[in-house]
Amino acid sequence: MNTAVVLFLTTLPDADAADVLARKVLESRLAACVTQLGAVRSRYHWQGKLETAEEIQVLFKTSLVRSAELQRFIESNHPYETPEILSWQADASPAYGQWVIAETQRPLHA
Amino acid sequence: MNTAVVLFLTTLPDADAADVLARKVLESRLAACVTQLGAVRSRYHWQGKLETAEEIQVLFKTSLVRSAELQRFIESNHPYETPEILSWQADASPAYGQWVIAETQRPLHA
Amino acid sequence: MNTAVVLFLTTLPDADAADVLARKVLESRLAACVTQLGAVRSRYHWQGKLETAEEIQVLFKTSLVRSAELQRFIESNHPYETPEILSWQADASPAYGQWVIAETQRPLHA
Repeated sequence: MNTAVVLFLTTLPDADAADVLARKVLESRLAACVTQLGAVRSRYHWQGKLETAEEIQVLFKTSLVRSAELQRFIESNHPYETPEILSWQADASPAYGQWVIAETQRPLHA
Repeated sequence: MNTAVVLFLTTLPDADAADVLARKVLESRLAACVTQLGAVRSRYHWQGKLETAEEIQVLFKTSLVRSAELQRFIESNHPYETPEILSWQADASPAYGQWVIAETQRPLHA
Repeated sequence: MNTAVVLFLTTLPDADAADVLARKVLESRLAACVTQLGAVRSRYHWQGKLETAEEIQVLFKTSLVRSAELQRFIESNHPYETPEILSWQADASPAYGQWVIAETQRPLHA
């Protein structure tokens, strides 16, 4: 049977910042896998002007039970004041879903 | 509290076409942010043959209330006859969700 | 009216493996379109160590009725033991949705 997991999407200013956040998230077992989708170009309005930024798009895969904590962690550890943090539920295949749940379990001893 | 937003995915033939569409969408306040995810390779059947196309993948982030209008705008302004237009709902973190809603509000004076 | 379709995300070890899987899926009419999103960097725990892998991210677009069969096909034809297979439902614009449904119909004669 498929398993519900949660995907989180955020953008970081550069690959170093993406590496730092990915490592912290994985060390805290708040995601089973973090994927850097590579360089993207974001366009948006900021203080009345049309801005363009070169950024790194990052996708996190976590379990349902850890998703609220992952969001708070990204909010607290993100270098931007108002980071893009988007999440949605997805179906994982049985084997992958089991792996996500196992990898995001809080360790008994830190 | 998280806010529901809508993500739209489409592909454009090249970076120039992606720039043109992104600017039009942002000038019309139909999305808060447009992200060029970079070059992709699409494979599909067309008129009985297996085709390959190098394209640019673009992701739009908009509010629930503007999503139907954004879809019609992409349909009308897209260079392809049958463009890929895919959308799904996502949760935005409170600060980002507020920003998406504020940035996609229709201006009082055009 | 919009049409529900299903997006599948998986990662392959390299572009050749992604090509092979994309062709098989399209020849079997299990997806209307397969998009290689390009090179990504995945980080995850594996057997107690933090691993990094350079991979190719691939996105499949299929109809609701073919989605379970596509998942089984990816599970059977993927080079990894525990591949990432994630799926979620999306709205397709009317024209694109009709195209996805038409392209994923099982042929009357193989």
